[in-house]
Amino acid sequence: MTIDHVAIVVKDLDATLRFYTETLGFQELYREVIYDQGVEAVGLKAGDSCVELLLPLDEASPIARYRGDSPTKLHHTAYRVADIEAALRSLKEKNVALIDERPRRGAHGNSIAFLHPKSTGGVLIELCQPSGARPAD
Amino acid sequence: MTIDHVAIVVKDLDATLRFYTETLGFQELYREVIYDQGVEAVGLKAGDSCVELLLPLDEASPIARYRGDSPTKLHHTAYRVADIEAALRSLKEKNVALIDERPRRGAHGNSIAFLHPKSTGGVLIELCQPSGARPAD
Repeated sequence: MTIDHVAIVVKDLDATLRFYTETLGFQELYREVIYDQGVEAVGLKAGDSCVELLLPLDEASPIARYRGDSPTKLHHTAYRVADIEAALRSLKEKNVALIDERPRRGAHGNSIAFLHPKSTGGVLIELCQPSGARPAD
Repeated sequence: MTIDHVAIVVKDLDATLRFYTETLGFQELYREVIYDQGVEAVGLKAGDSCVELLLPLDEASPIARYRGDSPTKLHHTAYRVADIEAALRSLKEKNVALIDERPRRGAHGNSIAFLHPKSTGGVLIELCQPSGARPAD
């Protein structure tokens, strides 16, 4: 298991992006609207992983309500797996509750699935099988 | 900038550790009491990064109050830097508020420093210069 990305939900994408790139020195790797998740996502290169900034498209959505008035808030961790269907089958056999019983499409064509926080102790966990379409640099 | 670790504050270290190792398949890399931070920390190997589970030593501490009744909660992200003193100087010049103006000792002898959340948009960010003492496998 490796960290694919750490996701941070934000209120002002441009201001947060300036902080992470100009102040902290991260490099922007991709920017994409993920309609399925209702967010605009910006990926920042962090070695072989990413810090992913998520701007909710709808301020009435659960992800915006989770963030609330905070300018930024840690949202989820995504772990990279080689075979997401096998991983989901294995977790289901271990009685882990899944938000997504089948993988769906994430950023740049990745296959992703969220585990249900009631089975993870409250932290939202995503599994992610890369499509190989993510820019490497 | 790479991700050194993602830290999760927990209520029941053994139960959380069982979930991350037996259910999710992570490998325990280190376990250490960090008195300076008031936590027992368990590092789980995630590629070249770690997921770090933090059990507060004192249930009246700020980190325990932050977690509250949740069994687990995302606490901070730590980014690896080559020269933490230079990184802190550079951030100070950019008017970033620092919790630690000078590095202090983290797990396995690392030099660490926290940025103040008022300058980061609310997410707690740690900088971490590895000592090289962390077990590699």
